[in-house]
Amino acid sequence: MSLPSTQRVAQFQRFGERTKILTEYPVPNPATLSPNECIVKMEYAGVCHSDLHARDGDLAIKPTLPRIGGHEGVGTVVAIGVGTTNSPINIGDRVGLKFLARTCLKCECCCRGAELCCASVSIHGFTVDGSFAEYAVAWTDYVTPIPDSVDSAAVTPFLCAGVTVYKGLKYIDRQPGDWIAIPAIQYARHMGFRVIAIDSSKAKQDLCISLGAEKWIDFRESGSNLVDDVMAAADGKGPHAALVTAGSAEPFNQALSYLRPGGTLVGVGLPPATFDIPFGVLMGKQLKIIASALGSLQDTVEAIDYAAQGKVKCQYVVRPLEDLDSIFADLQNGDVAGRVVIKL
Amino acid sequence: MSLPSTQRVAQFQRFGERTKILTEYPVPNPATLSPNECIVKMEYAGVCHSDLHARDGDLAIKPTLPRIGGHEGVGTVVAIGVGTTNSPINIGDRVGLKFLARTCLKCECCCRGAELCCASVSIHGFTVDGSFAEYAVAWTDYVTPIPDSVDSAAVTPFLCAGVTVYKGLKYIDRQPGDWIAIPAIQYARHMGFRVIAIDSSKAKQDLCISLGAEKWIDFRESGSNLVDDVMAAADGKGPHAALVTAGSAEPFNQALSYLRPGGTLVGVGLPPATFDIPFGVLMGKQLKIIASALGSLQDTVEAIDYAAQGKVKCQYVVRPLEDLDSIFADLQNGDVAGRVVIKL
Amino acid sequence: MSLPSTQRVAQFQRFGERTKILTEYPVPNPATLSPNECIVKMEYAGVCHSDLHARDGDLAIKPTLPRIGGHEGVGTVVAIGVGTTNSPINIGDRVGLKFLARTCLKCECCCRGAELCCASVSIHGFTVDGSFAEYAVAWTDYVTPIPDSVDSAAVTPFLCAGVTVYKGLKYIDRQPGDWIAIPAIQYARHMGFRVIAIDSSKAKQDLCISLGAEKWIDFRESGSNLVDDVMAAADGKGPHAALVTAGSAEPFNQALSYLRPGGTLVGVGLPPATFDIPFGVLMGKQLKIIASALGSLQDTVEAIDYAAQGKVKCQYVVRPLEDLDSIFADLQNGDVAGRVVIKL
Amino acid sequence: MSLPSTQRVAQFQRFGERTKILTEYPVPNPATLSPNECIVKMEYAGVCHSDLHARDGDLAIKPTLPRIGGHEGVGTVVAIGVGTTNSPINIGDRVGLKFLARTCLKCECCCRGAELCCASVSIHGFTVDGSFAEYAVAWTDYVTPIPDSVDSAAVTPFLCAGVTVYKGLKYIDRQPGDWIAIPAIQYARHMGFRVIAIDSSKAKQDLCISLGAEKWIDFRESGSNLVDDVMAAADGKGPHAALVTAGSAEPFNQALSYLRPGGTLVGVGLPPATFDIPFGVLMGKQLKIIASALGSLQDTVEAIDYAAQGKVKCQYVVRPLEDLDSIFADLQNGDVAGRVVIKL
Repeated sequence: MSLPSTQRVAQFQRFGERTKILTEYPVPNPATLSPNECIVKMEYAGVCHSDLHARDGDLAIKPTLPRIGGHEGVGTVVAIGVGTTNSPINIGDRVGLKFLARTCLKCECCCRGAELCCASVSIHGFTVDGSFAEYAVAWTDYVTPIPDSVDSAAVTPFLCAGVTVYKGLKYIDRQPGDWIAIPAIQYARHMGFRVIAIDSSKAKQDLCISLGAEKWIDFRESGSNLVDDVMAAADGKGPHAALVTAGSAEPFNQALSYLRPGGTLVGVGLPPATFDIPFGVLMGKQLKIIASALGSLQDTVEAIDYAAQGKVKCQYVVRPLEDLDSIFADLQNGDVAGRVVIKL
Repeated sequence: MSLPSTQRVAQFQRFGERTKILTEYPVPNPATLSPNECIVKMEYAGVCHSDLHARDGDLAIKPTLPRIGGHEGVGTVVAIGVGTTNSPINIGDRVGLKFLARTCLKCECCCRGAELCCASVSIHGFTVDGSFAEYAVAWTDYVTPIPDSVDSAAVTPFLCAGVTVYKGLKYIDRQPGDWIAIPAIQYARHMGFRVIAIDSSKAKQDLCISLGAEKWIDFRESGSNLVDDVMAAADGKGPHAALVTAGSAEPFNQALSYLRPGGTLVGVGLPPATFDIPFGVLMGKQLKIIASALGSLQDTVEAIDYAAQGKVKCQYVVRPLEDLDSIFADLQNGDVAGRVVIKL
Repeated sequence: MSLPSTQRVAQFQRFGERTKILTEYPVPNPATLSPNECIVKMEYAGVCHSDLHARDGDLAIKPTLPRIGGHEGVGTVVAIGVGTTNSPINIGDRVGLKFLARTCLKCECCCRGAELCCASVSIHGFTVDGSFAEYAVAWTDYVTPIPDSVDSAAVTPFLCAGVTVYKGLKYIDRQPGDWIAIPAIQYARHMGFRVIAIDSSKAKQDLCISLGAEKWIDFRESGSNLVDDVMAAADGKGPHAALVTAGSAEPFNQALSYLRPGGTLVGVGLPPATFDIPFGVLMGKQLKIIASALGSLQDTVEAIDYAAQGKVKCQYVVRPLEDLDSIFADLQNGDVAGRVVIKL
Repeated sequence: MSLPSTQRVAQFQRFGERTKILTEYPVPNPATLSPNECIVKMEYAGVCHSDLHARDGDLAIKPTLPRIGGHEGVGTVVAIGVGTTNSPINIGDRVGLKFLARTCLKCECCCRGAELCCASVSIHGFTVDGSFAEYAVAWTDYVTPIPDSVDSAAVTPFLCAGVTVYKGLKYIDRQPGDWIAIPAIQYARHMGFRVIAIDSSKAKQDLCISLGAEKWIDFRESGSNLVDDVMAAADGKGPHAALVTAGSAEPFNQALSYLRPGGTLVGVGLPPATFDIPFGVLMGKQLKIIASALGSLQDTVEAIDYAAQGKVKCQYVVRPLEDLDSIFADLQNGDVAGRVVIKL
């Protein structure tokens, strides 16, 4: 396959500045790929809140600059490096790019469930270029095959946000039939949990109930009664588990209060600086706290499989690459319902 | 068996006041026992730091007053209530009393590992009278049989402190061969962990090494290098787990810093008000925090079995009941090496 | 509450003979109950295949004769023995009787998931009288509370057959999203498994699909291609697990053949004499075999909870006590679709 | 590094015939290695019973001929294929070769603990050449690093037999303190199990006791009382687990008889054709059977780590490559105590 010589990409050049859309950026040369590297002709790239943080450089992990952003996307393999052996994918395969671009798969971290902490990790959009490009470089042994039954745009958001929720639930060590309080209910329901959806608005309520939530809590209506309301929803004893986006202390501490004895709190996502944990509550109820982010290669296969079966779906809008900073503004203003997917 | 009509007991009458040693306190009447109740002629009662807190009423859980204290002890069953059925113990059996005096063994908390949180829990020295008595009332279905091979005084400290450590390790979900940083090394070593002992003084060092610690960290000598020193001790990567007495934030946060990616922190014991948890560290290393206290009926059988096999031993001194307030003063001043056991 | 002096019961008197329906059998006297015993006014009793074996005495476990049969039933507590303490149920409560009438809840077997093997087990219809009676004796600490939302007749079959399937799945140590081949699909589906139903007839197929089976295998149509067909149904690799009624060697060995590498076979129910296991297949695919029967007190609460939520339903017909031998004949002839429940 | 042009190897040419020792066999050319391939200058190769079966072609898995045998060995990396990326090892590193020469590390089998069943598995001595050679070809991403603290000859037997025992115990899902009956006691003891050693002779007894076995059963002396003797050794209730070499039905069925309720039987090694399993015993005691072979990449790292710590040791004799058929004869005659290691 002959590739064009230039492409459009979105590059971060200085923290806090607008993203640069480069229209004449060179396409990688297949002849100079290392073994196991491949070129993916991107169809779609998802935009996460963490891309905004990457642009602004305001997280503990910062991209090396200049850097093509994006850590979630779907495309087709158009070239594989000479000397690649044992490749699970071939030219023409549709594959997904993830936050983790490559880990060694052989160290203790990789073999015991913490690929994110692998000493030789590469990260799309941070340590290597990412998915905001028409032609992205990835690794044959780390891209995720996309099953035929699912649409490219529709599956994109599951490569980061989806697998994060899935993995948070997979390692929670609770049993089917247990109650869980969670904002994103689809995986939980299909994994056998009884779901208490916590969010706000009649539209969200209708959506959650239609997706299988057994209970609905409108946190605005509950206000200071939230803890009591969640406990009441789960047989009066509180849920066995809660998955909380670890963005601020309040929902975190509310969860510690409403969890049932022996319960489990899973924190996912971007952490704030510190939390004040009421350890007396943890001890009195014999609770566990698990910090969870992303997922392993195999976790991603499993998370995508739920999407391929049509069990989990994500609401999204498609926008062009040129809109990236405008999308970031919308994210910052809370004006995004569901997810934004960029068409490349 | 004919019982005397009076006995010596130590009773808490007002929070913050000295314990009353009553020498003419009535012995319970076997004829008025409920089914499943029994009278235990006590030989020894252990003194925990929490007994001091019970006397002073300065914990979240306070005894109802007046109350005979003590939640750890060994004695012999001398009477069993009329109408008792299905009793696993008989008159003449040597048994142990624990913090948990009775739970229902049938509710979800009891069946899923949180007996402490059973809605119908009774607690020796808090909600029912305890082990600081020559004749204590306990329950046939909740006392712990003491194997013949172990001495009564020697086994006493394992009924509270011992089982607390054992249970903290049992549910840690780590594998044999993993490194653990822990102050009390004996259970950990016999459960297959590689042990890093953290304490201070040459005497402690010699003891820990003789008991099987592979590594020794003197926290006074390490000072501000403690985190680095513990990481270095475990292959330079830090231990897979740490068991920390949840009494203050510093060792807790040090543990979060020295744990290896994917590691587990178990907090045991009396919690302080709140902890400032650096959630970014938890998320970056994908850590877990488990709050653990005491142990179930079966956990206690297992913990005592290690003592009966001679695998775990506890250093202790024997003192008379009349010394109780003086023992409390010693505990408060940090003047107790090992444990104090009262001879009744 | 005043009880009548006589009642109707079905009693086994000699192995292999017809059941005796006694219409003037004495009702137990509440005054002579032991502590923790109770009298349950039965509404419904389920008839299992094992009741037939009990009557005929052709299993390894045989009833002591004469014996009132039945080990599954629902009724209302009408008396509780004097001296009962710590009872989780009260007079007027609706409760279920199970195969296990009482275990000690304190021994290693009980505490580690094998209540069936408790040395002090009592078994309804075998070692103590059972549910084929208008007034049955049971134990307050072992009957199962029946939630209000479920009908007595409808819930009866879940107290033996239902909990057996539920427990077989609960301890299987597979993850949600895994494929399982199983004849009884409802629990599996609600526990997050992807279900391959194996049975025969168009009616069964329609039922299974409507209940959530993703794949259907008609074993008559598949014939000698069964193994290939089941493998094909599960992504061509075979299911991760199979639950097989351990009644004969063929479906058992078929399952070993169609399971995917690392798969798990759970055998439930009445075992035949011996199986010829092809150990090379087990080793080559690194399989596990688990033998599972009944469930614990807590397992039963959980299994019944699924019925109370309306997630699992059982097809049944109601017949009178006098029909018992005729029901046995129908069971023997394979003429029972679903379950038979006796109205008392 | 310049390599010689020829080497000595032991090659299987026809099943059932003597091994050919070729002294002028070509050394692989570093320039023609694929990426990720490497050449290992072998120091030692272990001889397993399965090498004998490979030579004779009498197992389900047979080598393709002609084939250099051997699937266990230690040597030093002297060349790495051009284009290798992400290699965890370097030229000069000491590494171990194993039965599994390479798996993909990315498929469901590899990610969920059954690397042996990976569809793209290569096996030393069977599908690719093995360790009976002065210069062997292996894969940088699958050889096992050998820690400095352990001797090459001494560690060799742990790369197959050792890891097989270790993995059999690692996935057994039993807790520290449980009793296990096992012929090879060292891993079990260091993993926290209480060990019952079953073997014969006073020398073996002394060795086992010195290595930490708590109980010793001489199966010759026990004879038909073996089951009773093993049960008696474990508190009269039988061990919680047994690891049995799956070579014949008798020890397998004895284990099912002496296991405690809820117990686990792990079969390792070369399986016979079929077993007659008494399924009634499995069901009555709620037992599990696990088939286990070899171990994963990470399992091997962990198993070798025990050897590097000096916790497990293996008795062995060193013999020259030319003795291979004579070693096979000794193995067949049961004349090998411990293991034979070939010096290359």
